[in-house]
Amino acid sequence: MTDAAVLDALSAALPAVSLAIGEDIEPKYLSDWSGIAIESPLALVRPASVEEVSTALAICNRYGQAVTPQGGRTGLNGSAAPRRGEIVLSMDRFTGIEELDRTAGTMLVRAGTTLETIQAAADEAGWLVALDLGARGSCQIGGNISTNAGGNRVVRYGVTRAMVLGLEAVLADGSVISGLQPMIKNNAGYDLKQLFIGSEGTLGVVTRARLRLHPRPVARITALISADSFEDVTTLLRQTGAGLDGTLSSFEVMWQSFYRYIAEGCFDGKAPMPIDRPLYTLIETHCGEEERGREQMEAFLASMLEDGVIGDALIAQSEREADGLWAIRDMTGELTHLMADHMAFDIGVPLASMNAFVESCRARLATVIGDNAQVYYGHLGDSNLHLNVDASGVSVDGQGRDAHRQVDDAVYDEVRRFAGTITAEHGVGFFKRRYLGYCRSQAEIATMRLVKQALDPNGILNPGRIFT
Amino acid sequence: MTDAAVLDALSAALPAVSLAIGEDIEPKYLSDWSGIAIESPLALVRPASVEEVSTALAICNRYGQAVTPQGGRTGLNGSAAPRRGEIVLSMDRFTGIEELDRTAGTMLVRAGTTLETIQAAADEAGWLVALDLGARGSCQIGGNISTNAGGNRVVRYGVTRAMVLGLEAVLADGSVISGLQPMIKNNAGYDLKQLFIGSEGTLGVVTRARLRLHPRPVARITALISADSFEDVTTLLRQTGAGLDGTLSSFEVMWQSFYRYIAEGCFDGKAPMPIDRPLYTLIETHCGEEERGREQMEAFLASMLEDGVIGDALIAQSEREADGLWAIRDMTGELTHLMADHMAFDIGVPLASMNAFVESCRARLATVIGDNAQVYYGHLGDSNLHLNVDASGVSVDGQGRDAHRQVDDAVYDEVRRFAGTITAEHGVGFFKRRYLGYCRSQAEIATMRLVKQALDPNGILNPGRIFT
Repeated sequence: MTDAAVLDALSAALPAVSLAIGEDIEPKYLSDWSGIAIESPLALVRPASVEEVSTALAICNRYGQAVTPQGGRTGLNGSAAPRRGEIVLSMDRFTGIEELDRTAGTMLVRAGTTLETIQAAADEAGWLVALDLGARGSCQIGGNISTNAGGNRVVRYGVTRAMVLGLEAVLADGSVISGLQPMIKNNAGYDLKQLFIGSEGTLGVVTRARLRLHPRPVARITALISADSFEDVTTLLRQTGAGLDGTLSSFEVMWQSFYRYIAEGCFDGKAPMPIDRPLYTLIETHCGEEERGREQMEAFLASMLEDGVIGDALIAQSEREADGLWAIRDMTGELTHLMADHMAFDIGVPLASMNAFVESCRARLATVIGDNAQVYYGHLGDSNLHLNVDASGVSVDGQGRDAHRQVDDAVYDEVRRFAGTITAEHGVGFFKRRYLGYCRSQAEIATMRLVKQALDPNGILNPGRIFT
Repeated sequence: MTDAAVLDALSAALPAVSLAIGEDIEPKYLSDWSGIAIESPLALVRPASVEEVSTALAICNRYGQAVTPQGGRTGLNGSAAPRRGEIVLSMDRFTGIEELDRTAGTMLVRAGTTLETIQAAADEAGWLVALDLGARGSCQIGGNISTNAGGNRVVRYGVTRAMVLGLEAVLADGSVISGLQPMIKNNAGYDLKQLFIGSEGTLGVVTRARLRLHPRPVARITALISADSFEDVTTLLRQTGAGLDGTLSSFEVMWQSFYRYIAEGCFDGKAPMPIDRPLYTLIETHCGEEERGREQMEAFLASMLEDGVIGDALIAQSEREADGLWAIRDMTGELTHLMADHMAFDIGVPLASMNAFVESCRARLATVIGDNAQVYYGHLGDSNLHLNVDASGVSVDGQGRDAHRQVDDAVYDEVRRFAGTITAEHGVGFFKRRYLGYCRSQAEIATMRLVKQALDPNGILNPGRIFT
């Protein structure tokens, strides 16, 4: 009855091309990259304007109809895949770049535009979109904003939150909150855009954004560095401040477990550097002149070698060599295939205790997965640690927990012990909501619910995500 | 009756030293730097712990008693000065640095600590507190956070929001929301700290913060540059990206009106550079090695001279010379004395239309203040424009508006016409609330009220500030 009524109302209010029902929904709208089980949504709405987003939400709100906002479906927490009876709100017809200010370095973009499209337009205008991640060809900027995406350049440019100057979002009741101002500083009342960034579509649907661009670097200088201790790696990170001025754009660390596993699994054991050190660090600078950048990197690494901070260093002499140094780090997607039963974590741990965490977590996990692979790497400059685990062959335990549940419980309990976060990058969604209390207090979660209740009193936006 | 009841409850719950009533309140707690008229608060609470903050707020909330959270009282919008019958909640007894992590570069500080104390502690540990502003010796970090302070280095390090990793705040009902995590990336649920940053104490009282530090620069290179057109200045700003890599830390612009007024008013007409150009720009870099930084600055400015982008350039050869170049820019406090009836604005205007705004606003103001001084300067890299006006001698107009009201109306109407913001830096407080709708839509303001209602349903925190 209610289903029929909400569909009737949507049919009457939206152009036919913006609505698909039941079997007419293309399968691609049913899943995301998380591998969450497919369920049947009630309908698919694909608005071609902010007004259509507003109209659709106002109708759903009136009927208490659950809505799944959807971007490029590249997320890994299950937020964007519709659950049974939900209405998918895909932004993939609302695309394009509305403005590009070449003087100030700002862009006004529609939520459905892919990150790659935005990057290309900025590049052509002599500017850089700071955000970059592997899914760039598929992910949409609205999704990047809703999940506060990170990526490989956060150490220099910050997370997505830092590049959003203005934002337009539609609330559950259809109200359009348009704050597309392009200024870096604006203290006129509450900074509402912060509510919609990183809240996984539970507080509003992002429709347009004004992005801050950065000057396009002329060159990148890339180096692979080995180190004998985690303490040395943190010293290296700290020294980049003075040694590389503000040019450092990436600082990626790989524990030997990761470096060896990928080298052996994907490169026949061949690696740019011998696999005999405990840690490998990949650093990159963005600079305005190649020769100056190279000299600076050489001088910096020479001083670090002299001080005994690093073991060895390789500086790429060409773009091709730089790609070669990134190859192992960029092969993380292959872990899905290399591991028989692959599980990925995007946790965060305070820098000071990160290595102790890795050692503790490794020992703890060994009691669950035995000798199965567990590999560690991450964006060290951001306190973000990635961990991939092979959970194959683990039986249901005495408490009835399956393999994934046992691994999750172990990893997130370690995160709690070390005062880390269960998700530094991908968000909570469905998969981590059980563990939210491991890194947020009850008072924090209660306040999140207050905000949710204020902005979406009927609870129609992405229900069941983030909170249980 | 209610007054007596709330005072009785506070007396019973707090140590005597934490409470002063009526005439026992020291006068300094009654005003701030805004010059707002003094009124009599009911009492002054000076908690020495988070628990005391929580206790005091819970009692006030129960009685619907209005509370004025107060930091160093250096604000310019009137928020921190108590109105009649309010209870002042001063954080000046809750001070100190609880932790400083020299590896990760983070600090845990109490709200009442002055910015200068925090800066000194970081400096001693080899780190930099990015935030800096003239009131550093008096302003408190809790106030800096509550107003999302800016300052002179935003172009490189961002506003206060960018340096707050974790935050603890107490809600109106006394709930302690403690999220003091030190990680740069954390997407576990809503980022609640964003609500308390820049909301002028209307959503909660900031008690502690975990701050992100930056590597302490080894040297600063300072240059004063003249230019013939605003377009040239924006070209210069854009070119710093490639020319100075990531080292640019300040980019201050002064229109001739300002440069001349200060040079004549404070320096007997003597200025580091002749007063014959339309625009002057002060730029500074933070770098890890003085010689390298100086060479880079020289090469950059030489190329800008060659390209005809700039008129002339002076690079400071010593710290003393650098201070000399900053002298005119730093003399803004003197405007209060130089102008017979001084008014200050901290507006923001999109970069692309900033010069057109200045011309339009100048003509518009001339119809109000005649030949009185009006001087323009600002943090160009942040789209933040400062404007100081002498409103002396202006009579009440036909609509009964006094001088200040006429100037406010004119300036903010120009801001609205150019899609700017009424406050880029100092916040709304009492003085600008009438104009909030000039730069925020009704839907935005309605959503702000929803958030306010959710977190402070009895409206006890800083009532009357931001909104009318």
